[in-house]
Amino acid sequence: MNERIDIKLIRSLSQKKYRDETGLFVAEGEKMVQEALNSPFNVVNVIRKEAAGEKIMSRISMMSSPSPSLAVIKKPTDSVISDDIIHEYLADRGLYLALDSIRDPGNLGTIIRTADWFGTNAVFASPDTVDMFNPKVVQSTMGAIFRVRFHYCSIPALCKAVKYAGGNVYGTFLDGQEIYSQKLNIGASSLALVIIGNESNGISSEVEAEVTDRLYIPSYPHDERGSESLNAAVATAITLSEFRRRI
Amino acid sequence: MNERIDIKLIRSLSQKKYRDETGLFVAEGEKMVQEALNSPFNVVNVIRKEAAGEKIMSRISMMSSPSPSLAVIKKPTDSVISDDIIHEYLADRGLYLALDSIRDPGNLGTIIRTADWFGTNAVFASPDTVDMFNPKVVQSTMGAIFRVRFHYCSIPALCKAVKYAGGNVYGTFLDGQEIYSQKLNIGASSLALVIIGNESNGISSEVEAEVTDRLYIPSYPHDERGSESLNAAVATAITLSEFRRRI
Repeated sequence: MNERIDIKLIRSLSQKKYRDETGLFVAEGEKMVQEALNSPFNVVNVIRKEAAGEKIMSRISMMSSPSPSLAVIKKPTDSVISDDIIHEYLADRGLYLALDSIRDPGNLGTIIRTADWFGTNAVFASPDTVDMFNPKVVQSTMGAIFRVRFHYCSIPALCKAVKYAGGNVYGTFLDGQEIYSQKLNIGASSLALVIIGNESNGISSEVEAEVTDRLYIPSYPHDERGSESLNAAVATAITLSEFRRRI
Repeated sequence: MNERIDIKLIRSLSQKKYRDETGLFVAEGEKMVQEALNSPFNVVNVIRKEAAGEKIMSRISMMSSPSPSLAVIKKPTDSVISDDIIHEYLADRGLYLALDSIRDPGNLGTIIRTADWFGTNAVFASPDTVDMFNPKVVQSTMGAIFRVRFHYCSIPALCKAVKYAGGNVYGTFLDGQEIYSQKLNIGASSLALVIIGNESNGISSEVEAEVTDRLYIPSYPHDERGSESLNAAVATAITLSEFRRRI
């Protein structure tokens, strides 16, 4: 009986409504389970195929081929932060990332994984960004979700806080300065925020108004373009790589 | 009656078996349809919602919300090339990309889109790479599939052809040379092939044996790593960006 209830609960966690109601989310695969257990996250339950059986695993797994293990984990309570405490999250200075309405779960997961690789101090996302505890996001972070500090907040308010603290706000635009040769403010005590815009519409006008440094990732050959854009995770990667190259 | 057959045919094209049997594939959305029509690809049929009706569109569309338009397109006949003619595809010299067993359709589509942005002369893929005409691949190229030259071939044979022509074969490895400071062979008459490995296993040992230049994309901070890898499309983007930065 108890087991039946668990199955229903776990299956429900593929939907944001039930993740919000229960304060829980799911991570699948032995590597993910291990990363969760070794992280500050509160792992409520670990279910393994050898104990639960193949049939139960295939009912609770969200993967096309059921994973050998699955963890049910408590969502952190500081996922959403209010405008008046944003400045506290900038105390480390250095490099930060902000997502202005990223909608694709695979993109968000890959962005978190990339932010982890390049050691950004925190990732911030607009309230209309896809839920970071969506199973596709969690899986495509490849464990980075347990290491990266991630908070939903107002991105215009965040930009204002960065500028108030003497930092720069960077965004990529088709009319920006070529990123390879542009000065990037990445010294020891500097504060830099990189904005990544929505997959279809780019950076919103409200956030664009806060950008201090307009960058451009040049295509090649430079004039005769067919494609007009890069994938959001790819743009994130190239931009963060350029910051880290200068250190 | 004729319409019913078309619906069945179009729906079947989500499976590789039927794409191979019919020599056809599908692209969805008005932008994709326009790009197909403006490309050398042979567009067999364009179906639009205003003519076909919402019901038929929702039956033939592979998207969660049915697209306003859909094109049925002939696959090119030179998708697979044999070892003895590989050298003909290297005639332009410059920058080429090779994929050693990319399995995720979203990754392949994003890689093709990125290769288009950075103007690689051609993209080659191992026979076990996911089918480039898989609908998820086509859609995530955002139209680049109609511009990028893409061929399946033996990657070890390709590497040998590149080296025979005096070119370099680049791959990223954890023990490689830091890419930012490494000399990259990207002069006017140079020939460079960048290898991107499988999502889980990286570059296969058979291909690794052909690599002339081992690169490494450094993580930050440089010593205390949690994450051990980057997404395949992200690694592609950073590597191609580094080549183009030097020009």
